Amino acid sequence: MSRTDVRNTIDAADTDKPPRVAFLGPAGTFTHAAARALFGLAVRYSEAPTIDAVFDAVQRRDADYGVVPIENSTEGSVTPAVDALISRDGIRIRAEHVLDVTHCLMSVAGDLTRVERVYSHPQALGQCRQWLATHLAHAQLVQADSTAAAVREARGDASGAAIGSQLAAELYSIPVLRSRLQDVEGNSTRFVMLATEDAPRTGADKTTVAFAVPDKPGALLHVLEVFNDRGINLSRIESRPSRQRVWDYVFLADLSGHREDPDVYTACSILSERCPMFRILGSYPRHRTTNNS
Amino acid sequence: MSRTDVRNTIDAADTDKPPRVAFLGPAGTFTHAAARALFGLAVRYSEAPTIDAVFDAVQRRDADYGVVPIENSTEGSVTPAVDALISRDGIRIRAEHVLDVTHCLMSVAGDLTRVERVYSHPQALGQCRQWLATHLAHAQLVQADSTAAAVREARGDASGAAIGSQLAAELYSIPVLRSRLQDVEGNSTRFVMLATEDAPRTGADKTTVAFAVPDKPGALLHVLEVFNDRGINLSRIESRPSRQRVWDYVFLADLSGHREDPDVYTACSILSERCPMFRILGSYPRHRTTNNS
Repeated sequence: MSRTDVRNTIDAADTDKPPRVAFLGPAGTFTHAAARALFGLAVRYSEAPTIDAVFDAVQRRDADYGVVPIENSTEGSVTPAVDALISRDGIRIRAEHVLDVTHCLMSVAGDLTRVERVYSHPQALGQCRQWLATHLAHAQLVQADSTAAAVREARGDASGAAIGSQLAAELYSIPVLRSRLQDVEGNSTRFVMLATEDAPRTGADKTTVAFAVPDKPGALLHVLEVFNDRGINLSRIESRPSRQRVWDYVFLADLSGHREDPDVYTACSILSERCPMFRILGSYPRHRTTNNS
Repeated sequence: MSRTDVRNTIDAADTDKPPRVAFLGPAGTFTHAAARALFGLAVRYSEAPTIDAVFDAVQRRDADYGVVPIENSTEGSVTPAVDALISRDGIRIRAEHVLDVTHCLMSVAGDLTRVERVYSHPQALGQCRQWLATHLAHAQLVQADSTAAAVREARGDASGAAIGSQLAAELYSIPVLRSRLQDVEGNSTRFVMLATEDAPRTGADKTTVAFAVPDKPGALLHVLEVFNDRGINLSRIESRPSRQRVWDYVFLADLSGHREDPDVYTACSILSERCPMFRILGSYPRHRTTNNS
């Protein structure tokens, strides 16, 4: 979506004082880039050290908005974000943004052969799994809370390297040894804007829902039928362990339309009755892939 | 499944020379425990350093069977195993085994306050995410290829600790500082036995399939209908990025029945025609949860 579209999703009451935006920091993360694409410069940014801390900030009203990564085109769901969306009350998705993600290996070691440790976010390590197995098979892989946190760690480690953005390499003045490490060309990440309320209807919207299905044959099929019968398309569905009961799943799905659209409203009402758990995680304008991604 | 059931899935021709079994090693991994539950002692075990190396061993006929983790009840899919199953030819699932997974923190540091680094497999770090955030928020999290590899690393690090099994702590003689770290009670992992052929029909079987759906509304629903119309139940479905095209998904599903059962055979034939990609990853006896898990 364009920046103008996002402006429309910010409450008019907020325009006299700039809204506070918490993002998965520190400065130089891909989330930071996504937040800037969504909000521009006229907001007050605050860096949160973890994805859970971004949710905390929005939930406690320390921030008006949050920005977190939710899904990558190569590695799949960002599980801490998905699990937090499913389990926390009072947080809604208000917008989405898709960003091309190109990973660099940066290091003060000077040379690839001197790298003994690679710091990065587990998602970035996953997106570069094949490259790492080929070029740095013997290096330790150290998990960091974000790619930019990894860059800061690597800067202080003479035999360390980090995987992160070109921007982070520039911000923290650390030499880039290799570029385009990601295993899959066109690697991109979907970020979501979090708020206490979702976005008003625009006519070109999507809705994210979470639901559990009754433990009987055909249960998932019958849920999908409720959507299909009303012409509601599912652009994505995935299952996650519920973390409540062993081998119990929660489904996360993206639907076409806004929750106030009559068909979506009816479908969600029916499923709220039928499913052991059904929650609307937010309606928001569809990201237009022609722009900024 | 019981050990006797597994014996029935091993080719009779193999009984004069013990089969070779590759597992995600080294000794003391949870996969090692699952392999021993499946095969007992009368086989030749070989330790593979990574999940991909287990697949390699079976594919190159260096091993008759392989054992890898595929899914955890708390953290979800073991993505390298799922991605390898989807992308590799000539490997079939031949059996499954579910194991209770209880994590210990072990260290030579003597005391939790002296632990600066925690080594483990990314899955185990994920299963203990909350515990780590509460008790060791400032420790580095270092990814290892397996929990037992992590224990070996931690043994040589005076300010390191590992998350792994009680068995590994005993095998490598390293003190256990804390037990039952996992965030969810009843945490368990499903392991699969890999081979070049799947298992013969027993009458109480399941079948794992991978498929892509055409890019049009209701496509997933129409796949599920083909199963439902024939009384075939789906016990699990999940989506994974295809790693071939950006934002393209492959579904992995577990069905009731054997691929030679007439209904399953018909459904799979129909979907092989209809789906851009449809593969049977194996039919095998259902794990009985009353035994050994």
